[in-house]
Amino acid sequence: MFPKFATKRYVQMIRNEETICAPATSGGGAIAVIRISGPDSIPVCDRIFFPSDRKIRFSEQKGYTIVFGEIRSDEEIIDEVLISVFRAPHSYTGEDSVEISCHASPYIQQRIIELLIRGGARAAKPGEFTQRAFFNGKMDLSQAEAVADLVASDSRMAHRIAINQLRGSFSDEISMLRADLLHFASLIELELDFGEEDVEFADRSKLVEIVDKVLNISEKLASSFSLGNAVKEGVPVVIAGNPNTGKSTLLNLLLKEEKAIVSEIPGTTRDAIEDTVVIDGIRFRFTDTAGLRETTDIIENLGIRKTHEKIESSSIILLVADINEGIVSLDDVLKKIRKQFPVEDKKIVVVVNKIDTVENGNRKFIFKILLKQASEILLFISAKTGEGINELKSVLSRIVESDRLNSENVIITNIRHYDALLKVSESLRRVRSGLDASLPEDLIAIDIRHAIHYLGEITGQITTDEILSNIFKNFCIGK
Amino acid sequence: MFPKFATKRYVQMIRNEETICAPATSGGGAIAVIRISGPDSIPVCDRIFFPSDRKIRFSEQKGYTIVFGEIRSDEEIIDEVLISVFRAPHSYTGEDSVEISCHASPYIQQRIIELLIRGGARAAKPGEFTQRAFFNGKMDLSQAEAVADLVASDSRMAHRIAINQLRGSFSDEISMLRADLLHFASLIELELDFGEEDVEFADRSKLVEIVDKVLNISEKLASSFSLGNAVKEGVPVVIAGNPNTGKSTLLNLLLKEEKAIVSEIPGTTRDAIEDTVVIDGIRFRFTDTAGLRETTDIIENLGIRKTHEKIESSSIILLVADINEGIVSLDDVLKKIRKQFPVEDKKIVVVVNKIDTVENGNRKFIFKILLKQASEILLFISAKTGEGINELKSVLSRIVESDRLNSENVIITNIRHYDALLKVSESLRRVRSGLDASLPEDLIAIDIRHAIHYLGEITGQITTDEILSNIFKNFCIGK
Repeated sequence: MFPKFATKRYVQMIRNEETICAPATSGGGAIAVIRISGPDSIPVCDRIFFPSDRKIRFSEQKGYTIVFGEIRSDEEIIDEVLISVFRAPHSYTGEDSVEISCHASPYIQQRIIELLIRGGARAAKPGEFTQRAFFNGKMDLSQAEAVADLVASDSRMAHRIAINQLRGSFSDEISMLRADLLHFASLIELELDFGEEDVEFADRSKLVEIVDKVLNISEKLASSFSLGNAVKEGVPVVIAGNPNTGKSTLLNLLLKEEKAIVSEIPGTTRDAIEDTVVIDGIRFRFTDTAGLRETTDIIENLGIRKTHEKIESSSIILLVADINEGIVSLDDVLKKIRKQFPVEDKKIVVVVNKIDTVENGNRKFIFKILLKQASEILLFISAKTGEGINELKSVLSRIVESDRLNSENVIITNIRHYDALLKVSESLRRVRSGLDASLPEDLIAIDIRHAIHYLGEITGQITTDEILSNIFKNFCIGK
Repeated sequence: MFPKFATKRYVQMIRNEETICAPATSGGGAIAVIRISGPDSIPVCDRIFFPSDRKIRFSEQKGYTIVFGEIRSDEEIIDEVLISVFRAPHSYTGEDSVEISCHASPYIQQRIIELLIRGGARAAKPGEFTQRAFFNGKMDLSQAEAVADLVASDSRMAHRIAINQLRGSFSDEISMLRADLLHFASLIELELDFGEEDVEFADRSKLVEIVDKVLNISEKLASSFSLGNAVKEGVPVVIAGNPNTGKSTLLNLLLKEEKAIVSEIPGTTRDAIEDTVVIDGIRFRFTDTAGLRETTDIIENLGIRKTHEKIESSSIILLVADINEGIVSLDDVLKKIRKQFPVEDKKIVVVVNKIDTVENGNRKFIFKILLKQASEILLFISAKTGEGINELKSVLSRIVESDRLNSENVIITNIRHYDALLKVSESLRRVRSGLDASLPEDLIAIDIRHAIHYLGEITGQITTDEILSNIFKNFCIGK
């Protein structure tokens, strides 16, 4: 019924065979690190490494120590290096491992890798070090995935989610759910064993309680994905509004560089222009759009269709209005948006732009009238002078922070986890209705086993070659 | 008389004050390394680093060991890291040093650097780690310079020269010369002390012998610069010849990509087009040129003037001829080149191209006639089919290898060393003629001291702030 999965024996076979090597750093810099892992790590290095201190016998070097010396190819000196030694199981991979810290010349790195391969190691595949860490029980699968997320993290929020996942908060949650369901399954299957005798060991209300609890948490986790994904890829913010209200100028100000063409002619911006920027540790993905108006210009119409798509897929809409347009025009646009995108989960921020064109004396009065009418968050800015931009930024970050991110809740960012959780919820809903309908235990047991299976896939208690290769192929080499 | 130089006390002051930090790796990859050096390295890290093994007291950690743990900012976990500890004087810089190996996220690196700076370290300047290694007597100045060359080395030859220099072969040579001159100076100055008494302690023929020896070696070293520089920057090879002989096709074949516009119209190539490629571990810098013919086209004339400049600055000339042009035409071009560039140190390789257009039956006969006439190296190729290209490549590398590179001679690659050696030679030539003319000892002593001074500048026994800042400003940060 379930896909074939890697048995413990299979894992052992992979583990014991080969020693792998790869550069773990890339690009320029002063130093480079080459990683070696596997049973022959130390002998392979011993053949090419000559400690400066002749009393040191490298092959007998203890774990968590460093040796200085030379890498040589026959008589030729390749580099002076530091070598870090790790002994199984106390290493990243759980195997004997070595890290060579050499000068960052690509030529030197290439020579050292060649020597290692000639000495019996082979070039590591992407993510193979982390894959071995998983095989050797140093981390579960969701933690392994967090390693890649952590390396890629470029904002405070993305970093926080990744490090929490690496440290097992998500795994713990999943394991607890799985333990609950295993307990449930054991009760149900006990009944099955005594099926003929019509014995009922499990308290049905207790069973319902367990399923409800797990179902609830699974759904909550699954629903955190849109936020988690937004944090990873950038929270999608669309800048919309009537033509010539200063949308491109606002985008430029947010990005602090000239990405969109700004002009005085209404309808200049035809393509949705997109870029990301980190505000208060959160990555936002801003999209500038063509004006929301009817037009006969075909190219511009294409732009407007794109606008609709962009608004559809955004989390936050910055609705830009010209303060000189007056309130009627603003309401008009708001109505248009609300009509076309009735979805509740989009936050709208009305940004009243061009306040620099209003005399100081009149400002207070106009602001007051507008604020009274506002059903959404309303801000006054001048995209031209930058006035009010900091308030806008802090509103943006507060919208995201309030959205559960600052609580200790686990946020999922990985589509694989999301898919698995959806399947868990689906199975559990079938269990729930089965219990309600007093279906036979064997039918219920099938769905419970499904749910357990999919939870196991997340942490890797159950894996298939396909899952593994999908996960690790996206890693960089050397990780 | 001499520029002011850094005294030992000044050096000590720099050394003891500050703790510096910088990323030592750059770009992507799986891991990143952050370096810290200076008296507070360990306390600064101790404030933010929490070993996983609670029994470990980081501040008491021995040198050449590694600790696993967490970097934390208050309660927030920034990363799980490995920290390598080095205790003065047994480190790269000679100071207490720490290397933090973290996940390669730019965000994480930035956070860790911020924490280190907040804890009392400051951001390192380019080359500051190596500069400290120099100040602390871990290497002399020419070795410090070799570090930058080694990091930049991207071919076998450049690597070999840099690693030899790092390991002190050049320094040793300079130190020996300096010791000889110091011996000489002591003899001369002894005489000066007894000047009134007209005593002659030094055997004049012995003095001449010392000066001649040092002068000879200095000149040999200085003359190795053109080769050394060529190895570092690429041995300059110019591809010249009559129009439409296939020069651009040959360049493309050597570079294996389309850098030059190839066309059938004579005189197409107007700009000198340049690129480097590594052949047999040697970097060559190939320049394609406009045809060597008189023309009325102004733009093309500009091209031809450039051709002359390029030939002037090249080490090797590939003179391309069309096999169908016949021998007369070839001789013509050769004569032109020999007339305009009578310099002896340029190697000319005559490359007879388009052999694919000659019938197999006629080939042997034509080759024989051409070879008989050849006063230079002569090769037959087809830039179109690639025939003969490997022979051409091996001829190129043999020309360079035979040029002293394969011997154990020291090759200098650094213009600073070159300048200093020229000044040494100049001073010694004055000493030599002073001895010949039996000039007074005090005049000779001045020039000897000059020579000693400039030799000292190479290894850094004598330095000025200007020399130091010129050297280290070109280093990358973190080295």
